[in-house]
Amino acid sequence: TSVSAVEVTLPAISVVLDGYYQDGERALGSREDGFGLGETELALSGSIDDLFYGKLTTVIATQDSDTEVELEEAFIQTLALPAGFSVRAGRFLADFGYLNNQHLHSDAFVERPVVYRAFLGGHYFDDGVRLNWVAPTDTYWTLGIEAFDGESLQADEFEDPDSVGVYHAYTKFGGDIGTSHSWQLGLSYLHNANGEASLEEHEEEEHEHDEDEESGHNHGATFSGETLYGVDAVYKWAPNGNYKNNYLTVSAEYLQLEDLYQEDEAGLPDDHSGWYLSSVYQVNPNWSVGLRYGELDAAMAHEEEHEGEHELHIESGKVKETDFMVAWHHSHFSTIRLQYSDIDDELFDSKDDQIISLQFIMALGAHGAHQF
Amino acid sequence: TSVSAVEVTLPAISVVLDGYYQDGERALGSREDGFGLGETELALSGSIDDLFYGKLTTVIATQDSDTEVELEEAFIQTLALPAGFSVRAGRFLADFGYLNNQHLHSDAFVERPVVYRAFLGGHYFDDGVRLNWVAPTDTYWTLGIEAFDGESLQADEFEDPDSVGVYHAYTKFGGDIGTSHSWQLGLSYLHNANGEASLEEHEEEEHEHDEDEESGHNHGATFSGETLYGVDAVYKWAPNGNYKNNYLTVSAEYLQLEDLYQEDEAGLPDDHSGWYLSSVYQVNPNWSVGLRYGELDAAMAHEEEHEGEHELHIESGKVKETDFMVAWHHSHFSTIRLQYSDIDDELFDSKDDQIISLQFIMALGAHGAHQF
Amino acid sequence: TSVSAVEVTLPAISVVLDGYYQDGERALGSREDGFGLGETELALSGSIDDLFYGKLTTVIATQDSDTEVELEEAFIQTLALPAGFSVRAGRFLADFGYLNNQHLHSDAFVERPVVYRAFLGGHYFDDGVRLNWVAPTDTYWTLGIEAFDGESLQADEFEDPDSVGVYHAYTKFGGDIGTSHSWQLGLSYLHNANGEASLEEHEEEEHEHDEDEESGHNHGATFSGETLYGVDAVYKWAPNGNYKNNYLTVSAEYLQLEDLYQEDEAGLPDDHSGWYLSSVYQVNPNWSVGLRYGELDAAMAHEEEHEGEHELHIESGKVKETDFMVAWHHSHFSTIRLQYSDIDDELFDSKDDQIISLQFIMALGAHGAHQF
Repeated sequence: TSVSAVEVTLPAISVVLDGYYQDGERALGSREDGFGLGETELALSGSIDDLFYGKLTTVIATQDSDTEVELEEAFIQTLALPAGFSVRAGRFLADFGYLNNQHLHSDAFVERPVVYRAFLGGHYFDDGVRLNWVAPTDTYWTLGIEAFDGESLQADEFEDPDSVGVYHAYTKFGGDIGTSHSWQLGLSYLHNANGEASLEEHEEEEHEHDEDEESGHNHGATFSGETLYGVDAVYKWAPNGNYKNNYLTVSAEYLQLEDLYQEDEAGLPDDHSGWYLSSVYQVNPNWSVGLRYGELDAAMAHEEEHEGEHELHIESGKVKETDFMVAWHHSHFSTIRLQYSDIDDELFDSKDDQIISLQFIMALGAHGAHQF
Repeated sequence: TSVSAVEVTLPAISVVLDGYYQDGERALGSREDGFGLGETELALSGSIDDLFYGKLTTVIATQDSDTEVELEEAFIQTLALPAGFSVRAGRFLADFGYLNNQHLHSDAFVERPVVYRAFLGGHYFDDGVRLNWVAPTDTYWTLGIEAFDGESLQADEFEDPDSVGVYHAYTKFGGDIGTSHSWQLGLSYLHNANGEASLEEHEEEEHEHDEDEESGHNHGATFSGETLYGVDAVYKWAPNGNYKNNYLTVSAEYLQLEDLYQEDEAGLPDDHSGWYLSSVYQVNPNWSVGLRYGELDAAMAHEEEHEGEHELHIESGKVKETDFMVAWHHSHFSTIRLQYSDIDDELFDSKDDQIISLQFIMALGAHGAHQF
Repeated sequence: TSVSAVEVTLPAISVVLDGYYQDGERALGSREDGFGLGETELALSGSIDDLFYGKLTTVIATQDSDTEVELEEAFIQTLALPAGFSVRAGRFLADFGYLNNQHLHSDAFVERPVVYRAFLGGHYFDDGVRLNWVAPTDTYWTLGIEAFDGESLQADEFEDPDSVGVYHAYTKFGGDIGTSHSWQLGLSYLHNANGEASLEEHEEEEHEHDEDEESGHNHGATFSGETLYGVDAVYKWAPNGNYKNNYLTVSAEYLQLEDLYQEDEAGLPDDHSGWYLSSVYQVNPNWSVGLRYGELDAAMAHEEEHEGEHELHIESGKVKETDFMVAWHHSHFSTIRLQYSDIDDELFDSKDDQIISLQFIMALGAHGAHQF
């Protein structure tokens, strides 16, 4: 009775291969100097029945000869709730801002903007639930709330964390101007009950943390706070709404992290913030070029020995990144990208201020439709 | 010559998604307080040729932000041996008792009974070989023997373990009474050459072990012994043998663990034991309800400081669990379950004695037939 | 907009199951005493578009109850470059010698020859790029160069390694003699910028290293040097070129590792070397037999305490392995192999000099064509 007949239905299967050669390393980045692999992805998805859709995305990340398997997505989503409602549950990418709910492999640049790497660990996915509502209006309007476990956004060594740490509310508006122009605006408010760092804990943990940061590894967010705001705006132009040959995408986001410390001492920063402005032009079906500028404005606590006593020293600084990329697309499934990045880092002691990356991103199998 | 033509045949592929919100945590359980994922499963199976069937089941478990990939099954099984014989080799679930050779995602309750979590690590799979024989009789009768590596059932810090640690013999009988009633009885005897704990080793290892137990983590069995007996009985009722609309399943198992210690001192317990009685009623195709009561009767060694000397102190106690669940099934592939558990724990210092779990279990792709 | 229609195309999917029972353990081997699993493989491959082919090979290795997922391949390869050129990029098996670019599961013996285990970690795969050229000649002639990250071939604790550590150039010639005979010759030259060991570092690291070696674990190469040469020769005989019923394969390789130490002291060995000669005869479609003899001639540094001072002591020795196997193939997808190995080890203190292995290797799904 143990070997049994099966009903053959197949989920959609896709593999994303991402390899690179890079000259240099950036702070909080996921790619190292030399040859390497980005996130290799194996995704399976499909309808579970007429009411539920399911998706599993497994990511294999390799760093320093270690191979780590991560579950980036393991969720179900309702397909047929009435009145514009839908529910998603399990593990999924938070619908924060413009970039966070998109997969890394659809990015136009080699790495996420520095503010994403600093506040969201590159892309923030977690275990939880989402309720989303799309208004029955001509202008696109959606509202959503999410609740998450929140461990990857938790402050280091947070004592006695809430088991549901993160609540997130967002809204997005969008529409068209004539046939060639379209736009989208988004607002996000994230409450992180376990996000306030403690100076006392910070002191103890500083050393190892520093090492991780300098080695460029990136598990979870580097900066945390109780409140994270996000504003995003996207503008797209395509001649007569035809995205086949050429089009332009301009996007910008601003993120602000507040309520950083449990203590209320003088000299502590009130907030960290960051933003980026990205512009990508699809010249023709085979070529695209992009320019992105991003900033992070934050402060790091360093322990210093001063006359025999250990003192916590808060040093604020900026990271400024300019990325220029040119990409060749042989088909929708194959991209080769060359990127030049100029980095001005006052915060992490990056040793490289000029980075050149040559990357391929290619996909096998099923391929989902693109998001806005 | 390196890229080569392939003959396209496809194994059956299935994905199981399991997510939950839980209020509370139970001893030796696999689910934590708050949002989380159960075992996310990716299975591939099919005929290798006319003589062999093969199956690979990969399980991705996440606990405390760690992602662990486990191989739960990687076995071949003969399809065409004569005289009712079959052989299975590789890694597979031991055919111990009623529940152990079933996959977690087909369970009617959120967690395995406490006696399974304590003696078998929830479900015991291992590398080895099985020989099974089904008698050519009207009444279902099967006999089997299995040999396993046995490492996950090994006593902590067992010195110089046998490389083939576990031998297991089992038999099952089953039949029908009229058209609406059916039954199955099973007996299991498991010999674990590396299962006897040593008090000396125990003393050294107690501290870290305790921590693991209290955190609810569950790798391998918590209690071990040289001998494990199991008796199981299942009764099913379905009107005229039609399981489509409503049916009842009543199952019970009793497990006893003996030859616990290498030492023969006074005050040491002779055995640990546990049992459960489970009753699940499928009200109609969309709803089922279940009630399960289970006990574990065991003893834990604690080291205590007494007048400057460390003394090993054996404290016996019971864990009593009552689980009530109601499940909604939109189709064979989608289940949402609400469970309330009442726990009376004298053994592990569980802080929660009432646990509420809300769980979804959904499957994408191929779906094997159900076992008895 | 997040759940979207997909275009259903399917990569070829294959699963390889490898399980064994072994009596004994060999130095640098991947199989342990008792029951166990070899490398369980899940591979997905296919055309990305008309210009690129892609392949992902995930390997799940289990040792000592740990499960490790490794990415063995994650590469793209050009399909349509002119003039006999092709490029491969990402992670792939180096085309070194005869065996290295073949998958373990297509081997005729249970383990790779000892010289492969010692110099290449069994099989050397890495992140990098390959340029290959096939000459437009009647006699098969190919030339290739590869550049790799090189971390798995790095000397232990190498200070400040080059980010592109390994360069490899190779050439292969092949042809037929009449209708029944064919041959191939290969030459490989590998430059490893991070391969020279340092005696000072060696001293510090010796203890833990020793333990790893003795436990038989095998991550990366055990011996490293700045230069690795390889020569390989293969001869095949099949009556009238028909490989369906019976054929003979004789293959041999010689590897030499040079420039071993950064220091230039007297008493240090100039090189390590090793070779094997293998002969496999396919008696009929269902049975094959094979005999292989292999040697490793190397030296290990041991720290010794001598009159209160720690002294590094270089001890050279040979490992001689004779393997005899007989395999039963029910189909192209199912093999069961029995192997007897006789080992004469002066180098690693192996406790077993006679090893018997019983192994199954079976494949589900797509199956690539065999290489020469």
